[in-house]
Order: sequence, then C-alpha cells, then structure tokens
Amino acid sequence: MKAIPPSLENLVGRLSRLPGVGRKTALRLALHLVKHREPQLQELISALETAYGGLCLCRQCYSLADTELCQICSSPDRRDDLVCVVEGYPELLALEEAGAFDGRYHVMNGLLSPMRGVGPEVLHLPELAERCRDGFVKEVIVATSLTSDGETTTLFIRRLLSGTGVSITRPASGIPFGSSIEYLDMETLGKALRERKTVV
Amino acid sequence: MKAIPPSLENLVGRLSRLPGVGRKTALRLALHLVKHREPQLQELISALETAYGGLCLCRQCYSLADTELCQICSSPDRRDDLVCVVEGYPELLALEEAGAFDGRYHVMNGLLSPMRGVGPEVLHLPELAERCRDGFVKEVIVATSLTSDGETTTLFIRRLLSGTGVSITRPASGIPFGSSIEYLDMETLGKALRERKTVV
Repeated sequence: MKAIPPSLENLVGRLSRLPGVGRKTALRLALHLVKHREPQLQELISALETAYGGLCLCRQCYSLADTELCQICSSPDRRDDLVCVVEGYPELLALEEAGAFDGRYHVMNGLLSPMRGVGPEVLHLPELAERCRDGFVKEVIVATSLTSDGETTTLFIRRLLSGTGVSITRPASGIPFGSSIEYLDMETLGKALRERKTVV
Repeated sequence: MKAIPPSLENLVGRLSRLPGVGRKTALRLALHLVKHREPQLQELISALETAYGGLCLCRQCYSLADTELCQICSSPDRRDDLVCVVEGYPELLALEEAGAFDGRYHVMNGLLSPMRGVGPEVLHLPELAERCRDGFVKEVIVATSLTSDGETTTLFIRRLLSGTGVSITRPASGIPFGSSIEYLDMETLGKALRERKTVV
C-alpha cells in the first residue's frame, strides 16, 4: 500500500527532477533532510529562498550576481581591454578556476541556434557590440566549445564586431594536456598537426 | 578570483551537506535550480517547507506521517494482531514494496546501542510493550538487520514482551534469492545449512 505521506511524496517528486537524481536518490535525500530537520532542512530552505530572491544577471556581463554588477565586473584588478565571451556561467567558473585570465567576461547563457529560436538578442550580443564601441575593449576572446553551434556563434560574433577595430581571437585548439595520441579523434589530431609549432 | 556570488556559494554549501553530494554535484544542482527558477526552484522551496512543517511521527507506530495517525495505522485493511518492528522508515518502505506484509508496524527509528546512549525509551519500546498489553496484538515480528546492534535489540524486545503472551518471531534467514553459493559468507551458509528444510 501507499505508505509515503503526501508531503514526503511531493518532496521526493520535486527532488527527483534535479539532474542526475533518480527516485531512489531523491527518497534518500528527502529522508535525510526530514531526519536532520534542525538545522539542515531549515537552512536549505533559507539558502534556496535567498538564491531565489537575490540572484540576478550582472548588468554588464550577464553572469550570475548578487548585486547589479558581478564581482568580476566591479573588481578594479581586472583588465578592461580584454573581454572573454563564454557560453554560460559554468564555463566562466572553469576559466576562473584555471586562473589564466585576468580580463572581463561576456556570458551568453546559450549559443546561437536558429533551429531552436535562439537569436543574437537572447545572448545579449547587441549589448556586446555596444560595449566594444566604447573604446576600452581592444580584444575579444571567443571561448565557445568546438561544436557546430559554437562555430556558428563564433562566426556571427566575428562579423558583428568587424567594424569596431577590436581584434577577435579564440583559444588555441589541439591535443589536450595529459591525453594519449592513440585515443584522440581524427579531427583533433588533424588540426593539431596542421597548426604545429616549432619546438624552442 | 572568487567569481561565485555569496548567495550561490551559500546554496552550494548547503546542498553539499546532503548524503552523496560533493561540491561539484552541489554546484551543478544549484546552477540547475537557478536556471529553472520558475517553477522548479519555487516548487522545491514550497515542498521543503511543507515537509518541514507538516511531517511528524505517527502517534501509534512512530513512522513518518502527515496526520496524527499514519496511513497504515489508520487503514481498516490491515491486520491488528500482527506488528512488525523495524529499525527505521526506509526499512518499512522496503517491506511495503515487497508487499508481503498486511499487519501494522512499530518503527524504532534506531537500534539499541548503549555505547551511543540509545536506550529503549528513544526507540519507544515501552510504548510497544504497552500496545502489546491491549489484547489485540498476537504476534510481533522483529525484522531488524542481522548486525550486532540488531541482535541486541531483538533480545531486548523478546525479554521486554516475555510476560505479555504475544509470540515473538523474526524473518527467516538464509541464502538470499538469486545469490550464488560460491560467493556467500560462511556465517550465512552455516546458518542456512543448520536450518535446512525438507524439499516438498
């Protein structure tokens, strides 16, 4: 018989909609939360409410922020002449973790996809072009994934910014660090060979 | 640099305290929830709040319930003369899923453990004894796990209910369905052989 109280069943249903969470895991999480009602369940509710009410998109780069300008856009330690265009917030976090970039960002929150009705406005690309006309930005690095939507988006950005005098670059592509040549795909290997560099 | 807004960082911290959820998974869940703010984040908050405010322990069997009596205790279709004692709510759910039991339950929400200060009162065992003196209960099935704490608890319950005239039983133990004898532990194999049955 149905031994699960409706309010628990409801919670299990909501949790199992999260990515990678099946019904079994959702039940385990729900029972854990109910068991540790104080303070874990209470604290999770308040954290979710703060995120729900407080998080917004940065006015300048459209990454996630608590304030009008995100922490990177409002930092005086970042270069103003270098803007890196990324697909989404997780990609920004990955680049920040690598610690190899000290400019600012433009977060598209998606890729151009005419098939799915995602046009340049959705990705705030007109705002990017506007930003590039200010005279501060000298270089735009387009760091999209090497997929077909990523390539389309890169081409569109190159055309969009063609009259601004800003140079458009993209990260080098080739054999990833630590990978074995034996298992690499033909596309990567071919590109890496064609764009080979002199050993110094 | 720290690119995560404090309210998102807080949510990631809370989520990563859930069992089986590391920081990477917590970040993925948090970003998913923020991206699907309407309606997923909103609905999760309300489901958590309902569970927080609404779930309690059943007055009779101490399983999780939305109301004073749980669905099993208030069902007219279950036998009143048979009570199954289980360690916790997940064990109750597993037995219900098997669909092989039509009596009622007593949920201990733990096992006796003098080392950890868990005595009979915490497990509501005096209330179980009281219930067995009502004259309705004829049999108590003690379905604890076959661990040392489980055995201790079983022995305690047998002694506690010795004067009530209620018969105390426990589920059969032996070779589990679908398992191969080659890989079974000595303890299980020995017990299964000692308690062998005639093939009919």
